[in-house]
Amino acid sequence: MGSNGRDEKAIQALVTRWHRAMGAGDLAAVLSMISEDAVFLTAERPPLRGRAAFAQELMAVTDSSTIQSSAEIEEILVSGDLACCWATLTVTMAPRDGGTASVRRGPVLSIFRKEDGGHWVLVRDANMLASDAAELALKVDNLERELMADGPGG
Amino acid sequence: MGSNGRDEKAIQALVTRWHRAMGAGDLAAVLSMISEDAVFLTAERPPLRGRAAFAQELMAVTDSSTIQSSAEIEEILVSGDLACCWATLTVTMAPRDGGTASVRRGPVLSIFRKEDGGHWVLVRDANMLASDAAELALKVDNLERELMADGPGG
Repeated sequence: MGSNGRDEKAIQALVTRWHRAMGAGDLAAVLSMISEDAVFLTAERPPLRGRAAFAQELMAVTDSSTIQSSAEIEEILVSGDLACCWATLTVTMAPRDGGTASVRRGPVLSIFRKEDGGHWVLVRDANMLASDAAELALKVDNLERELMADGPGG
Repeated sequence: MGSNGRDEKAIQALVTRWHRAMGAGDLAAVLSMISEDAVFLTAERPPLRGRAAFAQELMAVTDSSTIQSSAEIEEILVSGDLACCWATLTVTMAPRDGGTASVRRGPVLSIFRKEDGGHWVLVRDANMLASDAAELALKVDNLERELMADGPGG
């Protein structure tokens, strides 16, 4: 196995550990896989900069919900100390008070950096989980129907 | 300037050329900066695989609209023949029939590969332009207000 093969395996293992730690609510394990200067990008909010900011956000979520996630790795590209992993992510969040769980799914493009010790850490993350647009579109439909029913002659 | 400095400059120049070609509707120039096996990821639809599929989609859009886009580069990471560029993208699409233009804005994480000739091409693109969710959320608010006004005593 070449160097790239070893690096690919290492990143696959890291992704597996990541989702296991998420499911177990093991925040320390999750944070150990993130660089201090990591940046998390989504369409829905400004970039989340730094491991500390990520930890704060994750704790806020896990306070009220449990998270189960899994990734189907589509591809890992490696060159030197930089790697790019494309995966399809599924995230289920269940409110601890017993409310309805939400499931979101979509691609994620994650950039990993090889540190001096030879281990990889997540440095940049582009998260494209399907937004709530579909849910909102349904809500618009329902509200419009209600308004129609309430309208003249309704 | 080190090798990485040169590569960074080359990618900056490519990004500039990209948006200039988009604005000019120069499809051939845009496609020359994309690898044949490029993949385009968003939250809104399945991965768009290959330069040919991208060309088809772009032509469908430019048939009915003009596109003006610009990128503010936040960072370029380079290692060997792989580079990762994080930018903030603004895309304005104006219908050719004179309808209202739409403006979308958000982060994009683009992966470039250095080809044998030494030039860089786009291979993976994670596009996180703000989805229509914000617009839909506003619509929900407005409809809910209308329903309140139409309700008992309204």
